[in-house]
Amino acid sequence: MRLVRYDDNRLGVLRGQKIHDVNNVLDRIPASKWPHPPGDALIAALPELRADIEEMADQAPTIPLGEVTLLSPVASPSKIIAAPVNYMLHLEEARGDAAINYGMPVKTIDELGLFLKSPSSLVGAGEGVERHFPDRRIDHEIELAVIIGRGGYQIPAERVFDHVAGYCIGLDMSVRGTEDRSWRKSLNSFTVLGPALVTPDEIDDPDALSFRLEVNGEPRQASNTEHLVFDVAKLIAYAAATYTLHPGDIILTGTPEGVGPVVPGDVMHCFIDQLGTMDVSVTEPAVHHAAVA
Amino acid sequence: MRLVRYDDNRLGVLRGQKIHDVNNVLDRIPASKWPHPPGDALIAALPELRADIEEMADQAPTIPLGEVTLLSPVASPSKIIAAPVNYMLHLEEARGDAAINYGMPVKTIDELGLFLKSPSSLVGAGEGVERHFPDRRIDHEIELAVIIGRGGYQIPAERVFDHVAGYCIGLDMSVRGTEDRSWRKSLNSFTVLGPALVTPDEIDDPDALSFRLEVNGEPRQASNTEHLVFDVAKLIAYAAATYTLHPGDIILTGTPEGVGPVVPGDVMHCFIDQLGTMDVSVTEPAVHHAAVA
Repeated sequence: MRLVRYDDNRLGVLRGQKIHDVNNVLDRIPASKWPHPPGDALIAALPELRADIEEMADQAPTIPLGEVTLLSPVASPSKIIAAPVNYMLHLEEARGDAAINYGMPVKTIDELGLFLKSPSSLVGAGEGVERHFPDRRIDHEIELAVIIGRGGYQIPAERVFDHVAGYCIGLDMSVRGTEDRSWRKSLNSFTVLGPALVTPDEIDDPDALSFRLEVNGEPRQASNTEHLVFDVAKLIAYAAATYTLHPGDIILTGTPEGVGPVVPGDVMHCFIDQLGTMDVSVTEPAVHHAAVA
Repeated sequence: MRLVRYDDNRLGVLRGQKIHDVNNVLDRIPASKWPHPPGDALIAALPELRADIEEMADQAPTIPLGEVTLLSPVASPSKIIAAPVNYMLHLEEARGDAAINYGMPVKTIDELGLFLKSPSSLVGAGEGVERHFPDRRIDHEIELAVIIGRGGYQIPAERVFDHVAGYCIGLDMSVRGTEDRSWRKSLNSFTVLGPALVTPDEIDDPDALSFRLEVNGEPRQASNTEHLVFDVAKLIAYAAATYTLHPGDIILTGTPEGVGPVVPGDVMHCFIDQLGTMDVSVTEPAVHHAAVA
């Protein structure tokens, strides 16, 4: 199943290029009161709702994919976890390029562990990425994103896939500079998720997905998740050894070589095998990043 | 007003050493459905509920503070933002001690910006801190914590205090090592908030609060927020220039010199002028941090 969230928080199932509207199923997600259970209530309810969603989709009115604004398939992650330098060729490129490393030592993922991005940075493909700094380099980083279904802590390696709700294409946008990763990568719109949440039954092997990113038709990044340093299972186990995971938590698995700058007017065309494609525009924000005196 | 959350998510007003139970006011926080508004629903509702909470507290049954388990006054922050090296003497100590810097260059806050901690790391004073690694150094870092009330983005400097719900004592626990800050400081129980959320009307000047931390009676850290490199107003403006802020978001303002290790059995006695005191125990976790093969 391929779940999309679109327009004004509507829910749909993507089949081919058509969205089957299943918005009525949202009535079945229970309301909650303070303190709300952590995580995304739709992702938490998905195992119970899935059969009905599929059945509803069979009879649903359809809308062409091109006529909607795609939002992030996950509305409310409690956290966004990401892997630094998880492809060897990106490690080499980062070490060799001062415009990427800004004079900071580039360590391996074994040394660095994981990092966090702000949930406030999350948008969908239809919302686009804003360049917050007119005078600093903003880079694209395409990544496989893992969406946690059932939460957990200290999950044994052999059971990590029981905790996966699905996969998405992820963009980990980054402003280059000396700031902490969780600052440089957390500006509003700097995490893009889409086009759909694809359930694991639609994926042959998350560690063997080819993917690529083009900017205005020019090839920039192309790799395969078989080159991950920490593979998908190890990343989930590592994340769950550090943080208690909740439904809807996002794990961005890291980007390969070929990162590079984008500017307003650019369109990033993103493709991951079996997950689909998404086109993401770069725009000027209404307000640039404020210099704070 | 001094708001406490305790035991099984009960709400109380702290007056002297007594908690006045105002749990019934929670019925007035509206339930919500997916997608839930970001942030903490109690903090969001506080401006509307405050007068009634005070009135209810006047008539409420009381419980001695010592008889409850204090939880974090904020239940569900959408994010925890923190300031690295925001006291000059801590910058000097970090630069001069390889057991703190682990061979990484220690930059200034101007160069580093801010960083994030996982909301899953948050506990209250009564829950205590778990040492997840038997063989690594875990340090205490006491800090003034600012709790955001009304959310916002790009908040002008002259209006930042309109967005503050209150202040708490914060502990930014840290395991030393080469990992990213948002990993080393985000293990479960590594953010302690307490004892109460103290509203701004109870604080003379957040930039002139003396504070100290003792471990088993031994003085470790002692400073005053007048020594902040980025003061409270600048930190809020800087955070709001980076991330959209939501009700209940926490800004940890940075720790002064004197950071040092704790081990299970230790008790950290924390004091911030006008905010009160909290004693936080260090314990062995049920499960140590898992080494992931």
